[in-house]
Amino acid sequence: MKIALIRGDGIGVDVADAAMAVVAAALVKSGAPALRLDEIAAGAGCFAETGRDIEPGGEERAGAADAIFLGAIGLPSIRHADGTEISPHLRLRDRFGLYAGVRPVRAYPNAPQRLADPRAAGIDMVILRESTEGLFYSAAAHGRSDIRGDDEVRDTLRITRATTEKLHRFAFGLARKRKARGRPGRVTCVDKANVFASMAFFRKIFDEIAPQFPDIAAAHAYVDAQALNLIRAPWEADVLVMENMFGDILSDLAGGLVGGMGMAACAEIGDTTGLFQPAHGSAPDIIGQDKANPLAAILSGALMLDYLAEKSGDGSHAAAAARIERAVEAGFAADRLRPVEFGGDMGTLAVTAEV
Amino acid sequence: MKIALIRGDGIGVDVADAAMAVVAAALVKSGAPALRLDEIAAGAGCFAETGRDIEPGGEERAGAADAIFLGAIGLPSIRHADGTEISPHLRLRDRFGLYAGVRPVRAYPNAPQRLADPRAAGIDMVILRESTEGLFYSAAAHGRSDIRGDDEVRDTLRITRATTEKLHRFAFGLARKRKARGRPGRVTCVDKANVFASMAFFRKIFDEIAPQFPDIAAAHAYVDAQALNLIRAPWEADVLVMENMFGDILSDLAGGLVGGMGMAACAEIGDTTGLFQPAHGSAPDIIGQDKANPLAAILSGALMLDYLAEKSGDGSHAAAAARIERAVEAGFAADRLRPVEFGGDMGTLAVTAEV
Ligand SMILES: CC(C)[C@H](C(=O)O)[C@@H](O)C(=O)O
Ligand SMILES: CC(C)[C@H](C(=O)O)[C@@H](O)C(=O)O
Repeated sequence: MKIALIRGDGIGVDVADAAMAVVAAALVKSGAPALRLDEIAAGAGCFAETGRDIEPGGEERAGAADAIFLGAIGLPSIRHADGTEISPHLRLRDRFGLYAGVRPVRAYPNAPQRLADPRAAGIDMVILRESTEGLFYSAAAHGRSDIRGDDEVRDTLRITRATTEKLHRFAFGLARKRKARGRPGRVTCVDKANVFASMAFFRKIFDEIAPQFPDIAAAHAYVDAQALNLIRAPWEADVLVMENMFGDILSDLAGGLVGGMGMAACAEIGDTTGLFQPAHGSAPDIIGQDKANPLAAILSGALMLDYLAEKSGDGSHAAAAARIERAVEAGFAADRLRPVEFGGDMGTLAVTAEV
Repeated sequence: MKIALIRGDGIGVDVADAAMAVVAAALVKSGAPALRLDEIAAGAGCFAETGRDIEPGGEERAGAADAIFLGAIGLPSIRHADGTEISPHLRLRDRFGLYAGVRPVRAYPNAPQRLADPRAAGIDMVILRESTEGLFYSAAAHGRSDIRGDDEVRDTLRITRATTEKLHRFAFGLARKRKARGRPGRVTCVDKANVFASMAFFRKIFDEIAPQFPDIAAAHAYVDAQALNLIRAPWEADVLVMENMFGDILSDLAGGLVGGMGMAACAEIGDTTGLFQPAHGSAPDIIGQDKANPLAAILSGALMLDYLAEKSGDGSHAAAAARIERAVEAGFAADRLRPVEFGGDMGTLAVTAEV
């Protein structure tokens, strides 16, 4: 299978390399053929050098691969004139309809734990963030803002039935897979249906889809109450499905409970391809210092192998994914994974080698 | 001075009574004249009985008072046909331009503490939530959604220069007042300026206003990073200013760190009047059980007295406000405030009497 590899900017390059190395090793150990990589130049550095944020033909090549792996994109010093950041990533989400943003959040032993309650060791949820519409329909990259001189700017939050139906089906399917491995089997629709017509619509479609999955519990929460509940009892959360902007905020919040962005893996899945990336940024302050925590990227690599397994029907991809997840878990449990980010002594390369 | 009192629905009635009793007692002890109350019927119960969510002439009377105090509004069983909730509150915000939503979040000794880090005892911030525009410009109550059959719904996020300038000035003014009593004197503009033109505009206006307050530090954060940072180091936050929907989410999140909605006081200030209310809802599950924690309402009463002090120039109002805040603080410090909500033995009436 072929992977479009966009290493991007800053530490994106290092963590993408780390993830590719671990993925390759896991495939060898699982007896699977190696992946072919098609590297594509993109990001703020690319923009500064060439005036384009992705090399010519890069988007087409990304779409032709079986999956896309992305390190991180963006450098604060290099921006568009209106102050927004260079982000071909948003265009890739849009172009390939990567509607299902999967952000797993789980506690690992010996990884940082912010909450005092010992039940926080049981945190194991997925934030499912719709990733092509909602407020991001109006992301500056798409040029849809309504700018009225220097007096007023309007952006648009868009919810469509077509995407929302797919999203909720994905959510219930995911909860069903998780139930098979012991999770409660519950999807919570997180919205603001008490205030917005768009959100009442989002919830209405959820209520239409839910009965198609009678084995999975369906629940509702307002986004503000859910934010509080992620502090109060995050161990109760299983799959939380929500609009794009809400998912951006709540996934960082939930990630913050258990290790922060250095552990935040992410998959963005569409009908024909998927994009995999650590949810963190390019961290320009630590470029070239071997300090970046590669685990978010490595865990994103495992998500990619899971996705390839479904695409190819090849069990060895699934085995390789499970191998990576077990390696991270065992590494933490034995206190042999001590990333600098968590106050430990292991840089990017050492963490990668240990996994 | 005259207060328009909307007790509303559910526990709103009980906590509003609690707040009015404590405010009255504090005024007596401070040698200030009593407030005159003009009670206005509004809310879901009012809607069910009369077909209107506020009594005729109620909005005008609310505007004619020196301030508005609101208990809580809404009952899940009573809704508009589109699924949104009964909320004359949103119309009051709009009608009286109550742009500055002040949501103080602070840790009290012996009140619940979710974070393991002992520095969390030092949490003392204000979330300043713009409360008339942003995404709430499109709240269903205003009838501005773009509903395209059963296929698509669009809502609009609106940022205006006029409101945003006032908001940021309010933020810096507040940080200055807080600095006078020992806080760092810093305003953080929380936005998503990397992605949205509306948010880049919000930030641009912040950067224009900041130099007018050279004694106050100005900082920036993206809303997703700020959500994580509220988990990682909330004791560093002073005044955080943001768009309406972001403020709704982040204020509940921050409140969750230190006692939850039962402690979440709120002021919404406009050019001519202010509305004061606990940020929690009507909690229909505990109606009539004397279980509601009245402290959010009582602390909102203190915010109201502070506001009246500025309006009247009468020092006894400020003294009464300080008296309430000290009473809550001393009550917790001596472990004499043990609300049922926090696992204690004191119902609404007992907590009120103790304060
Ligand atoms: C960089 C930015 C465009 C992106 C987003 O908001 O989607 C990031 O925050 C993320 O969460 O993937
Ligand atoms: C009830 C609702 C309209 C309200 C809001 O979202 O503004 C509430 O959540 C709040 O925070 O005051």
